[in-house]
Amino acid sequence: MSAESYLSRGVSPTKDDVKKAVKNQSKGVVPGAFCKMIEDIAGDDDYCVAIHADGAGTKSSVAYLMYKETGNYDWFKGLAQDSLVMNTDDLACVGCYENLVLSNTIGRNAHRVDGKAIAKVIEGYDEVIAKLADNGINIKMCGGETADVGDLVNTLIVDSTIVARVKRSDVVNAANIKPGHVIVGLASSGKASYENSYNSGISSNGLTAARHMLLSKYYYENYKESFSDTLTEDKAYCGKFRLTDNLPGTDVTVGEAILAPTRTFLPIIIPVLKKYKDSISGIIHCTGGGQAKCRDFGKNIRIVKDNLFELPPIFKTIYESGEIPMKEMFQVFNCGHRIEFYCDESVAEGIIEISKSFDVDARIVGHVEALPEGSDNEVVIKYNGEEFLYN
Amino acid sequence: MSAESYLSRGVSPTKDDVKKAVKNQSKGVVPGAFCKMIEDIAGDDDYCVAIHADGAGTKSSVAYLMYKETGNYDWFKGLAQDSLVMNTDDLACVGCYENLVLSNTIGRNAHRVDGKAIAKVIEGYDEVIAKLADNGINIKMCGGETADVGDLVNTLIVDSTIVARVKRSDVVNAANIKPGHVIVGLASSGKASYENSYNSGISSNGLTAARHMLLSKYYYENYKESFSDTLTEDKAYCGKFRLTDNLPGTDVTVGEAILAPTRTFLPIIIPVLKKYKDSISGIIHCTGGGQAKCRDFGKNIRIVKDNLFELPPIFKTIYESGEIPMKEMFQVFNCGHRIEFYCDESVAEGIIEISKSFDVDARIVGHVEALPEGSDNEVVIKYNGEEFLYN
Repeated sequence: MSAESYLSRGVSPTKDDVKKAVKNQSKGVVPGAFCKMIEDIAGDDDYCVAIHADGAGTKSSVAYLMYKETGNYDWFKGLAQDSLVMNTDDLACVGCYENLVLSNTIGRNAHRVDGKAIAKVIEGYDEVIAKLADNGINIKMCGGETADVGDLVNTLIVDSTIVARVKRSDVVNAANIKPGHVIVGLASSGKASYENSYNSGISSNGLTAARHMLLSKYYYENYKESFSDTLTEDKAYCGKFRLTDNLPGTDVTVGEAILAPTRTFLPIIIPVLKKYKDSISGIIHCTGGGQAKCRDFGKNIRIVKDNLFELPPIFKTIYESGEIPMKEMFQVFNCGHRIEFYCDESVAEGIIEISKSFDVDARIVGHVEALPEGSDNEVVIKYNGEEFLYN
Repeated sequence: MSAESYLSRGVSPTKDDVKKAVKNQSKGVVPGAFCKMIEDIAGDDDYCVAIHADGAGTKSSVAYLMYKETGNYDWFKGLAQDSLVMNTDDLACVGCYENLVLSNTIGRNAHRVDGKAIAKVIEGYDEVIAKLADNGINIKMCGGETADVGDLVNTLIVDSTIVARVKRSDVVNAANIKPGHVIVGLASSGKASYENSYNSGISSNGLTAARHMLLSKYYYENYKESFSDTLTEDKAYCGKFRLTDNLPGTDVTVGEAILAPTRTFLPIIIPVLKKYKDSISGIIHCTGGGQAKCRDFGKNIRIVKDNLFELPPIFKTIYESGEIPMKEMFQVFNCGHRIEFYCDESVAEGIIEISKSFDVDARIVGHVEALPEGSDNEVVIKYNGEEFLYN
């Protein structure tokens, strides 16, 4: 599927037009960092603040389908973790993981999404916050807004905003990603020691593609409200699965796999930073843009990824649908690892050990090369004998 | 239109189900305040913090219609002010108006809303922030997220989150609304000295009702994407106006009136608080719930509003559509004033003078009476010989 045909589903994989729209915005006090940082809200020059916004995206559309098919409201719960982790794990990339404060904005069509569903989302927030607290990570919920916007939203949209305050000396600035450093990737799929069940690794990116590649015309016929009315029949739900079908290569259903709550890597990132921060030049969260997202950080570098994880089952099954070429797969999905540490090779094994101690697989997935001054960054992915260049 | 038939348009006027969903959430460090406040993010016991989220609601649907009908992208700009002011003016009610930091979440259907439209929204943020800075109010933009969620969002949704830090001793706590106090209301319509043109006063509440009461079947026939597919033909766009028609009683078009950017009252609230804070027991922003919203604050009180402004033209025209009884009009719309100070009668004239110095009309709209201990609050509105009780 080319970028153009991906846009035919109402999603821009590179978001070039959005980047252009915000290009004149201030870069903040740590230009080039993974998240925008601004002056401290309390006026202390030794600190800075990030206010970060992100959401569960179109994953809520699948939660809605599962709820409709099963009558079980619990499927709405995971959206809270999706929406929260998309923020926390971005923030961890700049070294912000303490004293996080959260607010949300939920938009719904009250005809389809009732108070019980909203209560489940709120319960989901409470649960994920309690669970993170058990792991020593403190997030305070500071309310939010649920708006009835049925003329805008077909079902439900769940966004979160997290505020974090951090010592400037603790900030990890991806602008410093260093030639010669290796890249340690942390697996997105599997079952971490702090998770209750198998995680497909899908997280909250590429969900529009995933849904339409995996799910079958049954959902086109029965749930028009679950997709854009700008999608023609040949673009909507082109897959072969029902939500209750087994996802090949796993013990879970396709519905469970798509709705696996986005894994947080905080329990791993925190001890890694405490032990190895001085040897780490950057941390990237492979979200929108997938494995090519790293191209936006650092200067005059070529990032070579030549030892990636094998595609986890959900991505393999999406790929086997045949519509998305492998080059685009790596831009739409994380394809196997979601967090990457750019670090001195001497600490790579130590980071991998910490990750594995949480049952999260990790490996050196690549390295950074220098390009001549003034070059544009580029990313090279070598996978299964093929090579893809993103520049 | 009864609450039930309002819900037939996908909007709950009282949001009782949402209130129930969040009822177990912590009340924060200043229970009963207009906004939730939490412990200071910098750990200073003398301070507290609010993180507040709100948005332009379905007003973006009208901006989309105006853009489609005129080809002019500028109509998207005002949504930034709508989304921002819905936050700032809530925060001002608790005395937070300094060092505000803002982030946004924009969701769009990229098929219909392109990068130029997003750029206009961002430009709108820059403009309103610059304008407020001219009035001594500092808001720092700290990025945000624009998501392509075409399977959820038909056109565009624009939400903002604002973080504010305030001295606890400066907080205005509406829990203290005091029997014997009078209510000074600040007019929502007209042209304030800090505005460029006539403001209808509609703000960002009740927009679903306003659109469907005012706009004609032309929009039903031509812009299915601008309303929920759960609305049957008899509920969608039941009015008699095109966007370019004159709004009776004004010099502006219906489209301009609906899209008038939400007025901020900060330039008035700040000098009022500086001069009269000790004589003010509460400030209410009449948003969702309209003139009955105040019922949620204070204890054992009856709030009597017997000297309201005459309905401004946009509300009068909506009322004359005949579908919404006057009692509900006051719950769906602000109907004439959006900010109310609960204050000692001795300072009322002073507050009114400050407001009028900004060309914003103001008057004593009512007063507060004591009810026996243990009573539920109630609101009584007396208007044009009729009396309405909200309890």
